[in-house]
Amino acid sequence: MHGCWNPENLASRKIAPGVIHKLAWGDKLMLSLVTLEPHAVIPTHSHPHEQMGVMISGKVELAIAEEILPLSGNAMFMIPGMTFHAFIAGPEGATLVEAFSPPREEYKTTTRD
Amino acid sequence: MHGCWNPENLASRKIAPGVIHKLAWGDKLMLSLVTLEPHAVIPTHSHPHEQMGVMISGKVELAIAEEILPLSGNAMFMIPGMTFHAFIAGPEGATLVEAFSPPREEYKTTTRD
Repeated sequence: MHGCWNPENLASRKIAPGVIHKLAWGDKLMLSLVTLEPHAVIPTHSHPHEQMGVMISGKVELAIAEEILPLSGNAMFMIPGMTFHAFIAGPEGATLVEAFSPPREEYKTTTRD
Repeated sequence: MHGCWNPENLASRKIAPGVIHKLAWGDKLMLSLVTLEPHAVIPTHSHPHEQMGVMISGKVELAIAEEILPLSGNAMFMIPGMTFHAFIAGPEGATLVEAFSPPREEYKTTTRD
């Protein structure tokens, strides 16, 4: 079903200390507005879902495949499925938009922290 | 393959007068940083691809299924496949992030206008 939501009405999930996903999803896509507090860390992990994202504000380092990719401005990134990755927010935190396909089933059980 | 790109290095496609997509894609996802000039219009159309997006700046009206949805702030939206929709940018234009699944093959032949 089509629709639109302001962030305060989206399902919210705290996926790591200082890291909040605001989520909506369909059959093939899950979209997330992600906020990271200063120096927040999403530890190294992988998943079969393809993941892409765009920076909206602030800076992060994306650690992937033995590289550290510094992301700022409106940088876009691609994380193929089954690829280990981590995020480390800069001193001012960061906001980004992420997309997953297929939707991450484990994120559909949302929490409001 | 993983990677990151600044907007000036992304494939660019003008999809309507005053409407530019900056695109990257994988196997399941296509992500786009979309800029609309003031009052730009994406005419009514539909496609089988599922589409979601998040507003980054400015305002648009999303015309869908006989509704007009006003979008601003960081509003998120969902457009199911095969659903007619159009966008009309506000007087200050707009920037948004859109995701498609599967990737839109016709957008892979990019143009730099």
